[in-house]
Amino acid sequence: MKNESFVVNSTSRIEAFSDGVFAIAITLLILELKVPVVTVIQDKRDLMIALKDLWPSYFAYVFSFIIIGIYWLNHHYIFQLFKRVNHTFGILNLFFLMSISFLPFPTAVLAEYLDDDVHRFSAVTFYTFGLLLPAIAWTANWIYGSKEYRLIDHNLSAEFIGKLTRLYSWSTVVYVLALILSLINEWLGLATCVILTLHFLFPPVKPVYKERLSVQN
Amino acid sequence: MKNESFVVNSTSRIEAFSDGVFAIAITLLILELKVPVVTVIQDKRDLMIALKDLWPSYFAYVFSFIIIGIYWLNHHYIFQLFKRVNHTFGILNLFFLMSISFLPFPTAVLAEYLDDDVHRFSAVTFYTFGLLLPAIAWTANWIYGSKEYRLIDHNLSAEFIGKLTRLYSWSTVVYVLALILSLINEWLGLATCVILTLHFLFPPVKPVYKERLSVQN
Amino acid sequence: MKNESFVVNSTSRIEAFSDGVFAIAITLLILELKVPVVTVIQDKRDLMIALKDLWPSYFAYVFSFIIIGIYWLNHHYIFQLFKRVNHTFGILNLFFLMSISFLPFPTAVLAEYLDDDVHRFSAVTFYTFGLLLPAIAWTANWIYGSKEYRLIDHNLSAEFIGKLTRLYSWSTVVYVLALILSLINEWLGLATCVILTLHFLFPPVKPVYKERLSVQN
Amino acid sequence: MKNESFVVNSTSRIEAFSDGVFAIAITLLILELKVPVVTVIQDKRDLMIALKDLWPSYFAYVFSFIIIGIYWLNHHYIFQLFKRVNHTFGILNLFFLMSISFLPFPTAVLAEYLDDDVHRFSAVTFYTFGLLLPAIAWTANWIYGSKEYRLIDHNLSAEFIGKLTRLYSWSTVVYVLALILSLINEWLGLATCVILTLHFLFPPVKPVYKERLSVQN
Repeated sequence: MKNESFVVNSTSRIEAFSDGVFAIAITLLILELKVPVVTVIQDKRDLMIALKDLWPSYFAYVFSFIIIGIYWLNHHYIFQLFKRVNHTFGILNLFFLMSISFLPFPTAVLAEYLDDDVHRFSAVTFYTFGLLLPAIAWTANWIYGSKEYRLIDHNLSAEFIGKLTRLYSWSTVVYVLALILSLINEWLGLATCVILTLHFLFPPVKPVYKERLSVQN
Repeated sequence: MKNESFVVNSTSRIEAFSDGVFAIAITLLILELKVPVVTVIQDKRDLMIALKDLWPSYFAYVFSFIIIGIYWLNHHYIFQLFKRVNHTFGILNLFFLMSISFLPFPTAVLAEYLDDDVHRFSAVTFYTFGLLLPAIAWTANWIYGSKEYRLIDHNLSAEFIGKLTRLYSWSTVVYVLALILSLINEWLGLATCVILTLHFLFPPVKPVYKERLSVQN
Repeated sequence: MKNESFVVNSTSRIEAFSDGVFAIAITLLILELKVPVVTVIQDKRDLMIALKDLWPSYFAYVFSFIIIGIYWLNHHYIFQLFKRVNHTFGILNLFFLMSISFLPFPTAVLAEYLDDDVHRFSAVTFYTFGLLLPAIAWTANWIYGSKEYRLIDHNLSAEFIGKLTRLYSWSTVVYVLALILSLINEWLGLATCVILTLHFLFPPVKPVYKERLSVQN
Repeated sequence: MKNESFVVNSTSRIEAFSDGVFAIAITLLILELKVPVVTVIQDKRDLMIALKDLWPSYFAYVFSFIIIGIYWLNHHYIFQLFKRVNHTFGILNLFFLMSISFLPFPTAVLAEYLDDDVHRFSAVTFYTFGLLLPAIAWTANWIYGSKEYRLIDHNLSAEFIGKLTRLYSWSTVVYVLALILSLINEWLGLATCVILTLHFLFPPVKPVYKERLSVQN
């Protein structure tokens, strides 16, 4: 506790707080779904139809849930590589959590206007922008923490670190691409996001450690 | 941390995150209850009557609270059997949590229309469908994790595992039955759900271990 | 893990889940406060006056926050006495958490109608009823867990246990009294609740252990 | 567990509960952002413009997120200095958490009226007041806990403790100043808050321990 840059050799409380924010953001998504008001027509299937017509809301809910869930899984994964935290990383992690907590808003915008031919363009562009933010923050977190083994396990191989850096940087580039594509054609932009996301459902890269060094913290 | 399929020999962070989602979903249910607007008539008991008329909301709140609570208790129980997690299970658990987080929405629909003779049919059917989703996800989680002792304790008896598999599969079948019944008569469908749920208030099956093997992780 | 009634010799996950529900219920209280709409009159102090007129909301927020906070502190305190949990206690604790999660609703009703001469009567009665529910659930939890040292530390003195049982039972009786008083005069009922609550801001009774026995779990 | 004032030699559960409240309050801020309603005009960029016009909401969201985040980081930091908790500190911490949980409300007021020339004055004053509350509660917590090493690590140097006391007291004074300034000119008051907050993004003071004493709890 007396080392120069006030590094804390434990990541447990930052993980607990992040888990809390992830869990809340992912669960708040449901508040975007509003009970349909069915009063005028008097058929017992009217409500069912109204519930089916909420498909943009279901899509937005499921997609954002998967996005936040994948970030959580990756946060879980990456904190097995981190061995220390410092104040700057705490701030950077906070900005990342801000971008995650923000997601319910573009999700609600997408849900409201995905089925609207005029406003779909703006809604998808805004949503794609909302997905770009955590990608940028994530990559910044990783680069800060992994640079010259600042906060990560010293036993990790340089090659493995480079691999992750490239993976995260390229994902960010693809989100930028998706944003540009959504300005041309909203369905194309959205499809790019969906495909990139599905790709992240595959297991993350297995950590590779330096040879002849025992795995220690 | 170097084994082939990147299995993590700890379930603590996935439990903490799941607990967070459970705790939030169960607490968000209260947001479905709206303060009644009483302005026109000027009797001091009017608000009391309006509060009593919210009985469908109270029923929906209490029932969904018990449902989520029982799933939490069972999640707690089942993670005593799990000894490892992998990426696929993380994804499956995420889908289960998605179905739990979704419950406040069908709950709000049920609360709004349970007292409405025309739309009760659709509301109950939708709610029953909402209950079926976590049952399916739960059973999928268990079958994936228990298959050939993939993630569960190797000391558990095969007979005990089969017993749980049958219990969870049959419950899912009963929820399907409740969904079909609700299409015939909504009260019948709802009653089936209530009885199945009450049944789960009984203590879960005690884990049975293989003979002559000491209980180890 | 093989004992007869499937008793779990750890209270950590039930504490974590309860903490989550407490933390969410206490924080959701703020959603009851609605931004005032000030449009017609054009004086720069209008909004300030509108914000001051929200005093019933501030009172309801602060009071319910203290109530939930005190329950949390006592939950923290009492789990130092509990050494085991079983399924029945899990269910009872769930009902207690349900009564805590419910509090934001009577709080919102109180906030809406405390300043309304006609409907104050119903609002206060409902709120007092809302305070009675967790008191009953709490006492039931304690009596179930402490009865014949079912779940609590065997080293606690019988006298100390009886003291707590009397304290919790009497508090429940006072909440019943407050409910009856609120039917006669709403201010009297509310004042009784406030005084009882303030009394709980005093430190809880220090645990007393049996003599000549070492403090063990 | 038998010492006189019922001091608990662990801060873990109070930290977990506080983390929960922080995580929820910070994530609830997003609920203040409302999906804009765009119906009349029929241009595909209308929604984009409406989303841009929400800048006061984005500002309020980001600023309050940073405020709560910094308090969390400092709470994390300060609990490395605390070694014990007692009932009074539990109550004081609760009042601090109440002031944090309250922040989404002045944030929503600021978001609604920051762009309104008439009501901006009241909105900023109210928001500044909302920022003053946690500053007061924070300082009270620190002074209570650090006074004569009541709850903090006995090995901390008296000089370091005095330094923190002065830092927190002066920050509170600056928030009072910001409140007074906002009564004169709202932009000046808001700017004071922003500058003070940015200042807290710098790493906290490194703990200094008494010489020749080993660092122990």
